[in-house]
Amino acid sequence: MSATPRQVVLAARPDAIPQAEHFEIREAPAPEPAEGEFRVRTTHLSIDPAMRGWVSAVANYAEPVAIGAPMRSIAMGEVEASRHPDFDEGSVLCGMFGWQELAVSDGSDVWFRHDRAHGDPSLSLGVLGINGITAYHALLDVGRPVEGDTVVVSTAAGGVGSAVGQIAKLKGCRTVGIAGGAEKTKACLEDFGYDAAIDYKSEDVGKALDAACPEGVNVYYDNTAGPISDAVYARLAPKARCVVCGTASISSWDPWPTGPRIERHVLVKRASIAGFLLFDYVDRFDEARNALCGWLSEGRLTWKEHVLEGLEAAPGAISMLYRGENRGNLVVKL
Amino acid sequence: MSATPRQVVLAARPDAIPQAEHFEIREAPAPEPAEGEFRVRTTHLSIDPAMRGWVSAVANYAEPVAIGAPMRSIAMGEVEASRHPDFDEGSVLCGMFGWQELAVSDGSDVWFRHDRAHGDPSLSLGVLGINGITAYHALLDVGRPVEGDTVVVSTAAGGVGSAVGQIAKLKGCRTVGIAGGAEKTKACLEDFGYDAAIDYKSEDVGKALDAACPEGVNVYYDNTAGPISDAVYARLAPKARCVVCGTASISSWDPWPTGPRIERHVLVKRASIAGFLLFDYVDRFDEARNALCGWLSEGRLTWKEHVLEGLEAAPGAISMLYRGENRGNLVVKL
Repeated sequence: MSATPRQVVLAARPDAIPQAEHFEIREAPAPEPAEGEFRVRTTHLSIDPAMRGWVSAVANYAEPVAIGAPMRSIAMGEVEASRHPDFDEGSVLCGMFGWQELAVSDGSDVWFRHDRAHGDPSLSLGVLGINGITAYHALLDVGRPVEGDTVVVSTAAGGVGSAVGQIAKLKGCRTVGIAGGAEKTKACLEDFGYDAAIDYKSEDVGKALDAACPEGVNVYYDNTAGPISDAVYARLAPKARCVVCGTASISSWDPWPTGPRIERHVLVKRASIAGFLLFDYVDRFDEARNALCGWLSEGRLTWKEHVLEGLEAAPGAISMLYRGENRGNLVVKL
Repeated sequence: MSATPRQVVLAARPDAIPQAEHFEIREAPAPEPAEGEFRVRTTHLSIDPAMRGWVSAVANYAEPVAIGAPMRSIAMGEVEASRHPDFDEGSVLCGMFGWQELAVSDGSDVWFRHDRAHGDPSLSLGVLGINGITAYHALLDVGRPVEGDTVVVSTAAGGVGSAVGQIAKLKGCRTVGIAGGAEKTKACLEDFGYDAAIDYKSEDVGKALDAACPEGVNVYYDNTAGPISDAVYARLAPKARCVVCGTASISSWDPWPTGPRIERHVLVKRASIAGFLLFDYVDRFDEARNALCGWLSEGRLTWKEHVLEGLEAAPGAISMLYRGENRGNLVVKL
């Protein structure tokens, strides 16, 4: 760690997937907390698909990160100086601390505290954090699986997808994972307990779904959009519930891509397709975290983590995610 | 009415919209009810967009009508001979009696009884029947409008759409109707109380929606799919609810049409798009009918009816509907 703290700022606005060259590392003076604030030294930065939207000029659910500003990011950090009564030095926090070594906060951007009894702080960026909480609420509140349902998950071996598959199994569902490459489908079957796994890079997804889901798809947990989703939407069971949590397979929305119309599937199957945004569930994070910590301590929930070392790894990490190169939840360890 | 009863049978399976030439009128011996059955003389045949699906070879929510079989249809009829304890002669019934002058039933295909105190039996094919009940459940149970919402309705002046617009107004919403042609948009504004009306034949729907829905669209009641829906989906408000009740603007699904992908709208707006099928709500028809009869008797619900005379008018009536030529709920009076 350099003596002068560093941060990664947005240098140019990407048209599509953010690449390393859209960011710059720069030094910034150590911030001093004012009364009612505290300073956090970040230990782990989260790399999430949503970051693409945060730097996009296209209308979105959040204001885009300004050029020259530190990249917005979920991160883990330890309080090293505090003038806030609720945040003691040494507390380990998950919050929107950004891609920077030091951050000052008044607590409003803190999501929750990490208890070291549950393991390494990086778990709170993964299976006990944004990934697990997303999987929990998007699957259970929007997908509403019931015992015996067939649940199909895209990016099934990823940080969110692997949690979705395991939670669906815990709820008594059959699970079918779609992932890219033999290594990931193997992880689906051997590590995450999927009943079937489809390699979209080497298989005809439609035919594979016909074989894996003879009664149709009851719940579709979508992280990709695009052709994988087209194949699933054509095989929905009556009253299927689809949750759109990401659009990883679409590299650009300018020009806006076209695809097979979904209206007839939706109508004939009385299906629903609904979008999910984690931030809508902030006031229920405790519910999700309690359930996830419980399953974890019972050994019923597993995860994979892909750790990149050092702040220098952050700029290129988002594009790595979109190229599908990560093997588990992608974090940058500082 | 001829001495030998007649029926309209499916003569050829249409690739797209059923036309007059896909049907034939033939004579059939008067059916005699067995014990536990009764015979109905039909008085009004319902002409509904769903009929296109009923004769389609493409997988659907119902078995297709067989070649040579009477066309499936909702109809009103009066019991003229009964060997069933629950259905007295003279009862006026709404049921799946088909395009035929006489039908025999065991009661399982009867939807409800019509009380002449509520007006002409044809009302039970319209605002008090499939149209009103569809509007009621699809809008209130799937669209879930709340006071102050902006509700956009496609085919806004039609049998279903006009009821949707009025029920949304009764619930305190702003209503924007999309219809084809000056006569229909005039009906939207003057007869059905819409706050704004858009003529998709002469206006740029997107620009007109921008003007009519400055805060975005909270509820979209879709009867058309296609380019009209594309314009609406691009203007959803956060947490918008879209109900797909029909796909009238798509003349053929073979080859399957493409359009702008909706996943990003769904995700960014956390919107939902859900299909609606009236038959899923059969056990709640009384609830809807009670509400509709109440509003009707209070003078808070109006309707338009387009009556074709005689069985000979039935074969060409479905295509008339898809060409948008009807002025109100289309029925064939026998």
